[in-house]
Amino acid sequence: MFKACVIGLGYVGLPILKNLSKKYKTVGYDTNHKRIQNLKKRIDIFSEFNKNDLSEINTTYTTEIEKVSSCNLFIVAVPTPVFLNKKPNLSHLKDVCNKISKILKKNDIIIFESTVYPGVTNDFCINILEKKSKLNEGKDFFVGYSPERVNPGDKKHSLKNINKILAYPHNYKKKDLKKTYSSLGKKIILTNNIKEAEIAKVIENIQRDVNIGLINEFYLVCNKLNINFDNVINLASSKWNFLKFKPGLVGGHCLPVDPYYLSFISKKNNVQTKITLAGRSINDSMASLVEKKILNKIKKINIKNKKIIICGLSYKKDVADLRNSLSLKIFNNINKKNKDIKGYDPLLNIEIAKKKKFITSINELSKFDVFFVLTNHTIMSSILKKIKHKVIFYPI
Amino acid sequence: MFKACVIGLGYVGLPILKNLSKKYKTVGYDTNHKRIQNLKKRIDIFSEFNKNDLSEINTTYTTEIEKVSSCNLFIVAVPTPVFLNKKPNLSHLKDVCNKISKILKKNDIIIFESTVYPGVTNDFCINILEKKSKLNEGKDFFVGYSPERVNPGDKKHSLKNINKILAYPHNYKKKDLKKTYSSLGKKIILTNNIKEAEIAKVIENIQRDVNIGLINEFYLVCNKLNINFDNVINLASSKWNFLKFKPGLVGGHCLPVDPYYLSFISKKNNVQTKITLAGRSINDSMASLVEKKILNKIKKINIKNKKIIICGLSYKKDVADLRNSLSLKIFNNINKKNKDIKGYDPLLNIEIAKKKKFITSINELSKFDVFFVLTNHTIMSSILKKIKHKVIFYPI
Repeated sequence: MFKACVIGLGYVGLPILKNLSKKYKTVGYDTNHKRIQNLKKRIDIFSEFNKNDLSEINTTYTTEIEKVSSCNLFIVAVPTPVFLNKKPNLSHLKDVCNKISKILKKNDIIIFESTVYPGVTNDFCINILEKKSKLNEGKDFFVGYSPERVNPGDKKHSLKNINKILAYPHNYKKKDLKKTYSSLGKKIILTNNIKEAEIAKVIENIQRDVNIGLINEFYLVCNKLNINFDNVINLASSKWNFLKFKPGLVGGHCLPVDPYYLSFISKKNNVQTKITLAGRSINDSMASLVEKKILNKIKKINIKNKKIIICGLSYKKDVADLRNSLSLKIFNNINKKNKDIKGYDPLLNIEIAKKKKFITSINELSKFDVFFVLTNHTIMSSILKKIKHKVIFYPI
Repeated sequence: MFKACVIGLGYVGLPILKNLSKKYKTVGYDTNHKRIQNLKKRIDIFSEFNKNDLSEINTTYTTEIEKVSSCNLFIVAVPTPVFLNKKPNLSHLKDVCNKISKILKKNDIIIFESTVYPGVTNDFCINILEKKSKLNEGKDFFVGYSPERVNPGDKKHSLKNINKILAYPHNYKKKDLKKTYSSLGKKIILTNNIKEAEIAKVIENIQRDVNIGLINEFYLVCNKLNINFDNVINLASSKWNFLKFKPGLVGGHCLPVDPYYLSFISKKNNVQTKITLAGRSINDSMASLVEKKILNKIKKINIKNKKIIICGLSYKKDVADLRNSLSLKIFNNINKKNKDIKGYDPLLNIEIAKKKKFITSINELSKFDVFFVLTNHTIMSSILKKIKHKVIFYPI
């Protein structure tokens, strides 16, 4: 029987902890004191879990690595972002490996869930763990990789409804591990090859990023040629194999990041990921297009008499997360030029919203005349219905 | 009641002619004398239609434009390739418009089926037709656009099983035209906007080209990193929204061509089609990769004693067409370096195969020892089964 420690309690770690805690003794570890305090108080500022969900989690929360030393299964779900120069930032992984090394003991199992390029688990993580702990992987302790497939805001594809890959190239407690992981997925796809699982994860996200990018590319062309994009997509969708992706602002911590992970290791090996990077380039360029569209629209409105607000600032529909949000980027740029133009997102945690000086109440909202909707949350239309005498624009 | 003339009797025109001839008086026109002779003899060298199929077509075939002057509906299905510099080659369309102008009369309807970039029908075709005929489109004669969706080698998606867009911005005989076109599709999607229909067609093909390109990009990366590509795709396919495209050699007269049409008009309007062109670049680069793979393999075999053959030379599976075939390109390059390495394609018309000095009989085939299969036609495995003491390689 495992005693499991989930390291990193964000979008990925928290649902893992929740599911595991139903059957196993668990500890939830995060370096972020505020996060741990909140979780103890049953608050999830990302709004993925409500108070009830959180009160179901029967676990211990801690920020001290020493407190998890009695665990024998470590599941690592820390962020793997990119630096400003788009190179992989493995500092959280490095930090975790260093910390685990201190408490690592014989027969411990560590499963990494963070998205990485192929080779990171073996060449980077295991390397640190072995060096620092003086133990041998595959003999003293055992490492596996199970790429997370959490889709924030998507209630349909929660852990229990989706297949989960588990790469574990060892015999030690393989069956037990698979059984434990069966709490974390509909079906566990067991494989021996960590690299295959690592690259499988990044290409899933790149494929989505490129397909949205391509639709954005078509959108840009149609805009320039004065062709009605929606009509075009409806016509094309009458073909049996057309893939109906939607144009939009791609943000968050997966699609704008993962392509650079694959590109990094490919470049190191002299392969060019042309399509992957072209996808990123087009998707990133959408922010300035939408910004221009809004500014052009504002020019046409008699701005002296109109109060303008930009609504929907998180990185995608029905998600409260502002990380890598192009909507937020657009708002910030416009707000810099004109402080009277305000921002609003109905999903944001009120503390965060207030800190960012966003509008937070419907009362305040009703004082505005012109509403630009960027991230169009499901709840948005019912909120806007309550505002009288308004003009609404959807720049994308 | 229309008397219809189908202009251009290739992959697109011939099935249109076949279906229309069941209900309407028709003429089949092509400038290629050999093609017309063959069709009169019920021979289709592309092997899309057999003798029975062709004998069902009750029509008149001609190479003389004067012979079609009694028709009042012209359906144009001529090729729209690219020049060597990848710029759109509209010479066939130009030629057709010039010819139709000579016989054009009041109330004639012309529907273009050829794939073009948005604007060609209005700005190029109608322009020629009006200038040369001295008649006015929209008043004296009427032009529409209905993009072909013929998928060579695909029996499942024949005309009667697929939806067909018909852009016809006129009232004149609109209902009759829709009724006539209902012989050419499962459902006719009528629209008034020709440009929308033009661009809808190219983006359908670009989306496919880019998605195959992206899978090829992943294939190239996996190859370089020594990761088993098939395993990776199987793992990734366990995600609910992964699109399982196959890597391969993209050829033919659609995917390697249409992206350049959209890119041409986009560039003219200062929009960059980065993803579209990156897709082309990766897909084209596959030929040299596969060529290298074959040459490397050959180096390892004791070549002095082995007879080598390259099988499957058409541009895609289960199609007899050699146009823009990367398999043929690879064979030609290898054959230039070593004349003893022969080529074979079981689907090719025997005349064409003999002219190209390919192997044409199973008897000859059985003299070879090493078989490289490029375009892997369905029939290939049963043919290769008959050859004893052979080695087969599938370089992709």
